[in-house]
Amino acid sequence: MSKHLQRDLENLKRDLLAMGSMVWDAIQRAMTALVDRRPELAAELLEVDDAIDAREVEIEEECLKLLALHQPVATDLRYIITVLKVNNDLERIGDLAVNIAERAVDLASDDPIPVALEFGGMVERVQAMVNGALDALVERDTELARRVLAMDDEVDALHRAMFATLQDVMREDPATVVRAVQSLSVSRHLERIADLATNIAEDVVFMVDGDLIRHQHELDGTADRP
Amino acid sequence: MSKHLQRDLENLKRDLLAMGSMVWDAIQRAMTALVDRRPELAAELLEVDDAIDAREVEIEEECLKLLALHQPVATDLRYIITVLKVNNDLERIGDLAVNIAERAVDLASDDPIPVALEFGGMVERVQAMVNGALDALVERDTELARRVLAMDDEVDALHRAMFATLQDVMREDPATVVRAVQSLSVSRHLERIADLATNIAEDVVFMVDGDLIRHQHELDGTADRP
Repeated sequence: MSKHLQRDLENLKRDLLAMGSMVWDAIQRAMTALVDRRPELAAELLEVDDAIDAREVEIEEECLKLLALHQPVATDLRYIITVLKVNNDLERIGDLAVNIAERAVDLASDDPIPVALEFGGMVERVQAMVNGALDALVERDTELARRVLAMDDEVDALHRAMFATLQDVMREDPATVVRAVQSLSVSRHLERIADLATNIAEDVVFMVDGDLIRHQHELDGTADRP
Repeated sequence: MSKHLQRDLENLKRDLLAMGSMVWDAIQRAMTALVDRRPELAAELLEVDDAIDAREVEIEEECLKLLALHQPVATDLRYIITVLKVNNDLERIGDLAVNIAERAVDLASDDPIPVALEFGGMVERVQAMVNGALDALVERDTELARRVLAMDDEVDALHRAMFATLQDVMREDPATVVRAVQSLSVSRHLERIADLATNIAEDVVFMVDGDLIRHQHELDGTADRP
């Protein structure tokens, strides 16, 4: 590998990890807005999301330049293509954080529903999945990628439990329907973030091992069931 | 452009359009399973989805080969990278069709909820968006891409109306909660398919004009609101 390519790949890695931090932070702020009922944080998050969007475009341009300039083949080519896809997934995670913050604004405008919703365990796992998937990518670490995949099942189970709880609330008190559906959306957005982290981890395994484990984790058969 | 590259790009176009047809068909089957209450169609759809997944992998490999072999720059490079991203979006649309079929299975196992849900207009627009976005890509037609973007607002409005209807049903009869939430999921899956078609159309405009209209349509501020 030429020294120039090596240096440019290092820069790309640094930029992608920086974007990962921004996305992690976006999830954090969105959940704080929700749990602490602080809708003003949602406005801040819009700025963070603009920065994430701008960063996505920069990283894509960086990848295109790398391809045009170094015309890499084999491993390097596959790595850069994977970064392009991951970059896209990270931007979508940023959007989902904004969607959560929007629900936080709605929910803060009314009384809390009469049940404690435990989002903590779900958020913790989702954030660990995002970090883990990115580390797995830049370190080309398939063991770590597979640990990320295993965590997706835990998030799905927590989402299912949240759905069961909210369903009971709605049945018992129809006045809670709107707020319960909004809370369910938050849970679903978190589950989708976990799915995107799963996509990243699957891409890493494919990139390193050539194993096709994509398309095994994607069916959400349980998501909207009791 | 070399004759070889031209020929390979033609093949790529043909394969991508074939994948687009498979995805269109998947949406069609999923909605038939739902509207006609024919859960047996869901099993068929799983096979269609497997074929879509396999096709996605083939197209990605085709793109990688094209990049390694022809080392294209400028317009051709950007086109191939766009195809890579679009390919990914199409595969996700296939997943969403499966998600709809899963809800169709759940809903067919119980009585219909006591309100007629009009999915027809939404599905028609969503399918037109998928076709339009793909045609815009292969014809490099930004006018068509912009028409696809405009349709996304119509789909959002229909999703909002669906949410309002279902909310009323749940409030009036709490026994409908599970089925109403499942029906709402179908509407949301359709809205997400429209978002993915929007992503494709935005990528086309960026590819052709260099205009950055990505990230203007993405905030779903209305999705879970009355």
